[in-house]
Amino acid sequence: MNNFIWYNPTRILFGRGTHNEVGRETAAYSRRILLLYGGESLKAAGTYGAITKSLTVAGVEYRELGGVRPNPRLSLVRQGILLCRREGLDFVLAAGGGSVIDTAKAIAAGVLYPGNVWDFYHTEKRPERVLPTGVVLTIPAAGSESSDGSVITREEENEKKSFCSPLLYPKFAILNPELCYTLPKRQIAAGSADILAHVMERYFSPNGNTELSDRLCEAAMKTIIHNAPLALADPGRYEVWAELMWAGNVAHNGLLGKGREEDWASHNIEHELSALYDIAHGAGLAIVFPAWMKAVSRRNPARFAQFAERVFGIEAEDKREDELAALGISCLDNFFRRLGLFTTLTEAGIDDSQFLRMAGRAVAGGSLGSMEKLDQTAVMEILELAR
Amino acid sequence: MNNFIWYNPTRILFGRGTHNEVGRETAAYSRRILLLYGGESLKAAGTYGAITKSLTVAGVEYRELGGVRPNPRLSLVRQGILLCRREGLDFVLAAGGGSVIDTAKAIAAGVLYPGNVWDFYHTEKRPERVLPTGVVLTIPAAGSESSDGSVITREEENEKKSFCSPLLYPKFAILNPELCYTLPKRQIAAGSADILAHVMERYFSPNGNTELSDRLCEAAMKTIIHNAPLALADPGRYEVWAELMWAGNVAHNGLLGKGREEDWASHNIEHELSALYDIAHGAGLAIVFPAWMKAVSRRNPARFAQFAERVFGIEAEDKREDELAALGISCLDNFFRRLGLFTTLTEAGIDDSQFLRMAGRAVAGGSLGSMEKLDQTAVMEILELAR
Repeated sequence: MNNFIWYNPTRILFGRGTHNEVGRETAAYSRRILLLYGGESLKAAGTYGAITKSLTVAGVEYRELGGVRPNPRLSLVRQGILLCRREGLDFVLAAGGGSVIDTAKAIAAGVLYPGNVWDFYHTEKRPERVLPTGVVLTIPAAGSESSDGSVITREEENEKKSFCSPLLYPKFAILNPELCYTLPKRQIAAGSADILAHVMERYFSPNGNTELSDRLCEAAMKTIIHNAPLALADPGRYEVWAELMWAGNVAHNGLLGKGREEDWASHNIEHELSALYDIAHGAGLAIVFPAWMKAVSRRNPARFAQFAERVFGIEAEDKREDELAALGISCLDNFFRRLGLFTTLTEAGIDDSQFLRMAGRAVAGGSLGSMEKLDQTAVMEILELAR
Repeated sequence: MNNFIWYNPTRILFGRGTHNEVGRETAAYSRRILLLYGGESLKAAGTYGAITKSLTVAGVEYRELGGVRPNPRLSLVRQGILLCRREGLDFVLAAGGGSVIDTAKAIAAGVLYPGNVWDFYHTEKRPERVLPTGVVLTIPAAGSESSDGSVITREEENEKKSFCSPLLYPKFAILNPELCYTLPKRQIAAGSADILAHVMERYFSPNGNTELSDRLCEAAMKTIIHNAPLALADPGRYEVWAELMWAGNVAHNGLLGKGREEDWASHNIEHELSALYDIAHGAGLAIVFPAWMKAVSRRNPARFAQFAERVFGIEAEDKREDELAALGISCLDNFFRRLGLFTTLTEAGIDDSQFLRMAGRAVAGGSLGSMEKLDQTAVMEILELAR
């Protein structure tokens, strides 16, 4: 087991009706905040009304900024920074999913920074102080509600970049599974793929001797694989959403990767896909992950065989490791297809014309991954396997 | 799933050599601290020397207080409070296991409180502020290094009481598995039983619909059951201790019980045992837990059957739930015996002369448990089953 630090100070309020506590939670930090959200769905579902009422009752004034889109844009971050400065807002409340939360973190980091907030995303520079943030989560997927990271797209260049800092942990995150009932099916599917990917990126590691972390990952994966199709079939079941929403948080709060190197190659390759083609991150992962597994399992079959046995319950009997690995990858592919997701680029309408460009950009900062170090040629091969 | 709050701000530094970072970690909070520990074993193992050197290099002055014993005493807490006040110490560093940490928390709560620190343990009163604490863990067992609780024994009355407050989370906890190599076998065995009990107390719940929490608990239990006998057989294996030490932390950091009622009846019954007979908490749990399970599984066989199947891998085939439950309890009993622990009171030299008194004291604050509410008669029956 490798040395590690485990630290996650975000306070999670989980359960029915908890979004009505947002005013009280926020008032502990500020009386004058930016309320950030995506589109009209928040208003249609009544969540916007409940949040603003709770803020008002708690004596918290808010200015609002809507219009955050998936693969959130740097231009909106800049707008939020200017709004906070102009209006003297000193707390950012994100009501939405990962895109809204990542935008909130970017604004929170930018307001107190005299330079260009994009510095944090494309250089080693990190903020020395940031505004506190809070979250009302409406889409379980990104895990950003209690992570230390933020991913933003600079639209001029179609560049999607991320950075991490312990200062980015939100102060609180409110997770009410009831808010998920109105999610469109494509978001349920893509969100579930994203959640599962967050666990897999921690599970597939070059290090052995991480028994507890392995088993915790397997626990989370089994729960996600069981509940995601149930949520898709009937999005009105509290207990199903409770499992998925809690799993989405645990998947990305940092715990499941402790003691070993993680492997985020798939994630990084997908970022290039969604930067160029603007497909949902989770939908892109369902295409990239099986291809990455096919490539990497050839030289590292053991962990993929364990995945097949322990997560999908495939009987080992007298199968070879590579056979087990292939069966596990095939089960994963089927799982994504059951969710209605494409698992090939062709189905998603993406041809090979940008493969070279995407592979080049994916490795621009150095080789990807830890189970296997991937250079441009290796990424090209994975994109070919994903066709 | 029940509503819950998940919050644990303790920063964990895990791995080889990490105890040498204690000075730097402590200096972030204080330059004048109380260093609290148990006996001479800390000095013999060289850990004391490494810690004090690290403190000195970081410019942290320390006064020390040794002599913390298992089932730690209120009298030593009072001594520590006076020492902190007299010397103007504003941070308590615990170097040891659960008893040292719980004493540190008690001192930290008492220094800034004008009344009697025992108030927190036997009334509803809670501290409004406490000194910050830090931990160098040397015995994986109690999980107190990142819990919000403290258990202290008032020796005049043989009263063992606990309290919880979010202020009690240590600021940091340093977990270096190398420090466990010199643990005596009886501490390895009792510590492992305590760790496993912390998971079981969360797993055995009257609530259904907690799939993720169930599976996370099962992951932890399998890891503990696999590694504890290995540590006992050869206490010098880093990877084995790494699993046990990390499992000991995860078992009691609060995560594994989320979304449901926990059941701490066994723990509370054991507190009466160790208060009267001064046996190690973990050793007492190995006696009480199987008896509690026999009693409670009669009316709630389903979860005990799941325990048997998923944790001990017993094939369900056409067995009834109660048969599976009994097999699981028998496997647990065998596991404790493999660790060299007694699983009956008689073996531990405890007769039935104090059963009535212990049962009465155990329920003095109201009935125990959640799977089944236990009154004095029910506790008596469990003690009988434990004979």
